[in-house]
Amino acid sequence: MADKKIMGIDLGGTTVKFAILTMNGEIQQKWSIQTNILDEGTHIVPDIVDSINHHLHLYGMKANDFIGIGMGTPGSVDRQQGTVVGAYNLNWKTSQPVKEQIEKGTGIAFTLDNDANVAALGERWQGAGDNESDVVFITLGTGVGGGIVMEDDLLHGIAGCAGEIGHITVDPDGFECTCGKKGCLETIASATGIVRVARQLSEEYAGPSVLKQRLDNGEELTSKDVFELAEEEDQFALMVVDHICFYLGLACGNIGNLLNPSTLILGGGVSAAGEFLRSKVANYFKQFTFPQVTESTKIKLAQLGNDAGIIGAASLALKLQN
Amino acid sequence: MADKKIMGIDLGGTTVKFAILTMNGEIQQKWSIQTNILDEGTHIVPDIVDSINHHLHLYGMKANDFIGIGMGTPGSVDRQQGTVVGAYNLNWKTSQPVKEQIEKGTGIAFTLDNDANVAALGERWQGAGDNESDVVFITLGTGVGGGIVMEDDLLHGIAGCAGEIGHITVDPDGFECTCGKKGCLETIASATGIVRVARQLSEEYAGPSVLKQRLDNGEELTSKDVFELAEEEDQFALMVVDHICFYLGLACGNIGNLLNPSTLILGGGVSAAGEFLRSKVANYFKQFTFPQVTESTKIKLAQLGNDAGIIGAASLALKLQN
Repeated sequence: MADKKIMGIDLGGTTVKFAILTMNGEIQQKWSIQTNILDEGTHIVPDIVDSINHHLHLYGMKANDFIGIGMGTPGSVDRQQGTVVGAYNLNWKTSQPVKEQIEKGTGIAFTLDNDANVAALGERWQGAGDNESDVVFITLGTGVGGGIVMEDDLLHGIAGCAGEIGHITVDPDGFECTCGKKGCLETIASATGIVRVARQLSEEYAGPSVLKQRLDNGEELTSKDVFELAEEEDQFALMVVDHICFYLGLACGNIGNLLNPSTLILGGGVSAAGEFLRSKVANYFKQFTFPQVTESTKIKLAQLGNDAGIIGAASLALKLQN
Repeated sequence: MADKKIMGIDLGGTTVKFAILTMNGEIQQKWSIQTNILDEGTHIVPDIVDSINHHLHLYGMKANDFIGIGMGTPGSVDRQQGTVVGAYNLNWKTSQPVKEQIEKGTGIAFTLDNDANVAALGERWQGAGDNESDVVFITLGTGVGGGIVMEDDLLHGIAGCAGEIGHITVDPDGFECTCGKKGCLETIASATGIVRVARQLSEEYAGPSVLKQRLDNGEELTSKDVFELAEEEDQFALMVVDHICFYLGLACGNIGNLLNPSTLILGGGVSAAGEFLRSKVANYFKQFTFPQVTESTKIKLAQLGNDAGIIGAASLALKLQN
């Protein structure tokens, strides 16, 4: 039992990542395949099964060597049934019997959860979360998402929407969001949101600024450009970053006031801005939390990068032990 | 085992309430004593022990008839140690070994949590929460507080501050709060907050209004007066209530977006305004949540009134079974 393994799968719209881990969270093998979303995504699960069986053969391992397989997936997950529906970047419009197919194809017990939750589990277990009981993970990427672990449990909510940090309303009069409401954190702090904020604020900014110049010239800009120029002390870029960190700090502050986790972890592409971002968010977090929370809840950067998904997915499998 | 009982204690600054319940949550006996906070609150626990032993004798019951005793208390609770510190309305400034004293004095296993958490457990178990897995309780009283149950567990957070709903920042430029920051929900939606909002808005209101008249005359007003006048269609009072419900709806909306509980329960003295309040909060909740949350998370009024505390406290004792 002690040397049984767990497998984690991170299913995405372009690649499927796999890893075999020890029960202590150490990655022993890692590989990936391309996601074939053709024919309504009907190849995806068979490809996963083939790839698992192929690699088990390659490593001289058997189904019996595993406690189980855990997977993170886009779309809406039915954890009891082991099905996924509405994963549009996989072309999965109808309900997919993922658990049934993978268990039948591999002979290994299988469980799954959504990708943001699984990444949160990973960062909490082996990353910035230090395996503490109460950890909130925020991904700042194309969108803003997240996952919440409290009292050692992943929170799901009645319709599976717990952790939808991107749709916290931070500015009731703010930008319209794709979700239909206004002023969601995602409209400001996602990669596209950051550029949107820069465009909006540039209309009122008068001083010299490379960022404003580029915007006025109609150049394509990324959130990375905004942060790089801010680090070079472009005054307008600094103003944009401050605006974003104000709202991120407000959202983090209110998560802190409500949940008081030991750690709030900032991950996703935008968090590549590193300590420059973290320290500014932490300053506003301090402004927006009451003293006991300010003192006990830390803001940290994610540590696992792309591996958070496979590690967190594998950790799901640990619960299949009993 | 099946007919063992549980006892709930709701410790407050003026009275201590007791109840004996079945394991199904049915109250069989209920009594209360005055809280004697003299001499640094040193009489409180001995009085509780005496009252329990007296009533067990009265009802012909023995320690062995109970699974345990649960208690809700003000102040900071150390659940592991069973101690309470900083309960200023009890004159408990130093750490009190409550569990040790009550277990020694009664021979019954004892456990405790803070009063807001315990009230949340009560409403979730036997009240508006329908015993569902994910329920958030908000008390609107002298202050604003709350308790959160997710995945069937009460959330505490690293420093025990989870559920401090009153300190969610709803208006970064708002009133100063006793906690040291600005724009906390409590500064707007507590009983005193509501009167404060009325005073502030009255400065800008010009039309005819009994509420404004009373304020201008320097009369003492309560939040109840504000709601009563609003129900009588006093236009200024309606404006004040709308302002309060906007921020309550924003806070509830963000709790919904973050946690997606099945139910958000409004309790405490201010919630006596009933459906008039609830429906207005629910309208703003709809505005501030994304569709899956709007559809799945309900806003309800508390049902248990003052009994939420003793019922929730007793439910804590159920966990002493194992």
